[in-house]
Amino acid sequence: MILLLGASGYIGEAFAKELQLRKQAFIPLARAQVDYTRFDSLLEFLRVNKPAFVVNAAGYTGKPNVDACELDQAGTLAGNTLLPQTIAHACAAANIPWGHVSSGCIFSGAKISAPGTVRVEKDMTKAELHALAEGKSAALLGFTENDPPNFSFRDQPCSFYSGTKALGEEVLAGAAQCYIWRLRIPFNEGENPRNYLTKVMRYQRLLEARNSLSQLDEFVRACFACWQKRVPFGIYNVTNPGSVTTREIVELIKQSGVSHKQFDFFSDEAEFMRVAAKTPRSNCVLDTTKLQQTGIVLTEIHDAVVKALRRWKTTS
Amino acid sequence: MILLLGASGYIGEAFAKELQLRKQAFIPLARAQVDYTRFDSLLEFLRVNKPAFVVNAAGYTGKPNVDACELDQAGTLAGNTLLPQTIAHACAAANIPWGHVSSGCIFSGAKISAPGTVRVEKDMTKAELHALAEGKSAALLGFTENDPPNFSFRDQPCSFYSGTKALGEEVLAGAAQCYIWRLRIPFNEGENPRNYLTKVMRYQRLLEARNSLSQLDEFVRACFACWQKRVPFGIYNVTNPGSVTTREIVELIKQSGVSHKQFDFFSDEAEFMRVAAKTPRSNCVLDTTKLQQTGIVLTEIHDAVVKALRRWKTTS
Repeated sequence: MILLLGASGYIGEAFAKELQLRKQAFIPLARAQVDYTRFDSLLEFLRVNKPAFVVNAAGYTGKPNVDACELDQAGTLAGNTLLPQTIAHACAAANIPWGHVSSGCIFSGAKISAPGTVRVEKDMTKAELHALAEGKSAALLGFTENDPPNFSFRDQPCSFYSGTKALGEEVLAGAAQCYIWRLRIPFNEGENPRNYLTKVMRYQRLLEARNSLSQLDEFVRACFACWQKRVPFGIYNVTNPGSVTTREIVELIKQSGVSHKQFDFFSDEAEFMRVAAKTPRSNCVLDTTKLQQTGIVLTEIHDAVVKALRRWKTTS
Repeated sequence: MILLLGASGYIGEAFAKELQLRKQAFIPLARAQVDYTRFDSLLEFLRVNKPAFVVNAAGYTGKPNVDACELDQAGTLAGNTLLPQTIAHACAAANIPWGHVSSGCIFSGAKISAPGTVRVEKDMTKAELHALAEGKSAALLGFTENDPPNFSFRDQPCSFYSGTKALGEEVLAGAAQCYIWRLRIPFNEGENPRNYLTKVMRYQRLLEARNSLSQLDEFVRACFACWQKRVPFGIYNVTNPGSVTTREIVELIKQSGVSHKQFDFFSDEAEFMRVAAKTPRSNCVLDTTKLQQTGIVLTEIHDAVVKALRRWKTTS
C-alpha cells in the first residue's frame, strides 16, 4: 500500500489518478482524518498501516500565485519546510522509503557554456543575450542536481515561496531513504488554473522567458518509476528534456488552433515586476541528465507541449 | 544525566554553570561531536545515552543584534524553528521530557485594563500614554501564556528573528512532554555583550520603552525547578515579575555608581528605527502569574536589577 499526502491538490490528484490507473492500493490521507503535520499522529499512522512507500504531494503554493505566499509566511513555511521535515523524521523512525515533490523554482537563470568555461547567469534574459553574443560555441545549460539553489534564502533575492522550497530540500539532505523530485511549471492536456498552458492562454499579458517545464502525467510516472526501478535515493530534476520560451509556447498554441486570441507581452521583466508581480519569479533551465541516465526518459519539451495541445480538453 | 544543547552560548553557559553548581551530571553536547540538528544523529544519541531530561538552549540570535537575522534567514529558521522541531520529534520518539528556551519577543506592547475592558496595544509607547490618559482605573497588564503572539509571521510587522521564534513555539504545540520557557532580555551581574545592563551602558543612544526582563541565573533556576517540581508541561513566561523602563534602568545604574556616563536617548521610536535599526524591535510586558502559581517565584524586576548592579563584575 502507498500513502499519498496532499491528494486533493493539483499535483496530488495526478498521483491519485495514476495510482488508480495502475490499480495500486493507496490511501489518499486527508488532514481532517489524520493531522499528518503532527509527528506523533503521522508516526502512529505509519506504524499501524505500514505503507510500502509514502508520496508527499502536499505543499503551499499560494493562490492565485506565489505573491500570496508573501502574505502568509507562516503557512508557506509550515507547508513547504516544516511538513517535509516532519515526514522525513516520521519515515526515518518507521523505516519507510518516501518521495517528496520539490520544485525547480529554487533556481533562476541558466549556465552559459563557452569554450573552457561554464558560468551561472541568474537573469534568464541576460543569459540568452550573453550566449547569443558568444556565438555558436556557446550554449545554455541547465542546473544539475549538484548545483546549489541560487534563488533561495541563502542566495537572495528570492520569493518567500522559493525560499521555503529550497529550505524544504535542505532539511531532507540527511534523509537516507528519500527521493526529492523537482517539478517545474506543470502542464498537460487538461484545462486547469494550475496548468501552465491554461495560464498562458488566460493571462492578460505574458512575460517572455525561457524555462524547463514538467508534463504533469509524465512527471508522476517518472516519480513512480524511480521507486519501482529502485534508482538511488536523492534529488532528481523531473522535467521534460530541453527548455522552451513563452513565445515558442504561444506559437505552438496558435498552430494548434486551441486559442486564437491576440497574445500580448510585457516589454521586459522590469515592466512585469512593476505592473503584475509583488515578488520576483524564477525562470530557469534544469538539466535532466541524471534522471535520463537511470533509464527514465520524458518526452522532449516542445513535443510534449504539441501533444498536450493536440489532446486539449476543456472542462466546460 | 541531563543533555544540554547550545551549551557554548550565553544562555547555555548559564545552564552549564548551574548544573555544575548542583553537581548534576550533564553532557554539554557540541555539534562538532554529534550533529544534533539531524534527527537520526540526535535520536541515536538519545537512545544510547538515555538522558533523563534535555535542555535546548541553542538558538540563532544574530550578531551584534537581531538586524543580522534579516541577512541570514535560512540560518535563523534553522536555529529557531527547524531545530526545536527536530528535538521535539527525537524526544517524542525516544520518550524523553525536555525544555526549550523560547523568547518573549514574540509579543509587542501590553494589554490595557480599564473598567470592563482589556485591550491589546501593540505600540508600547502608545500603551503607556493610553493607560495614563485613562487615569488611576487603568493598568498595564502583561501578555499571558494564553495570548497568541502578536509580533510574528502571523501578525506582522515583526522581525525575522521573532517570526522564527514564534513559529518555533508553534511546532511544539503538540509536544506531550515539553516545557517552553520564555526568556526576555537577559541580564545579571556579569558584564557581557549579551547582558542587557552592559548594552544599556554601551549603546551610544537609548530607546525609551517598557519591558519585562529575565535575570539570567534566576531564569535558569526557574527552568530546572519546573522539571524538578514536575509542574505541568507547557508554556511559561519566565521573567521577573513587573516591568521596567529604560529610563528607570538608567536611574538605577546612576544610583549604583557602576557608570557615570551621560546617557543619551533617541527622541522617539521613529528616530530609532531611522537611525539605528533595520527591523522592528519587540518591547513588551509579560504576565508571570502562571509560573508564580506553581510556587516558582523570581525577584521583583527593580529589585533584581538593583541586586545585579550592587554585585556588578567587569571582566577586565
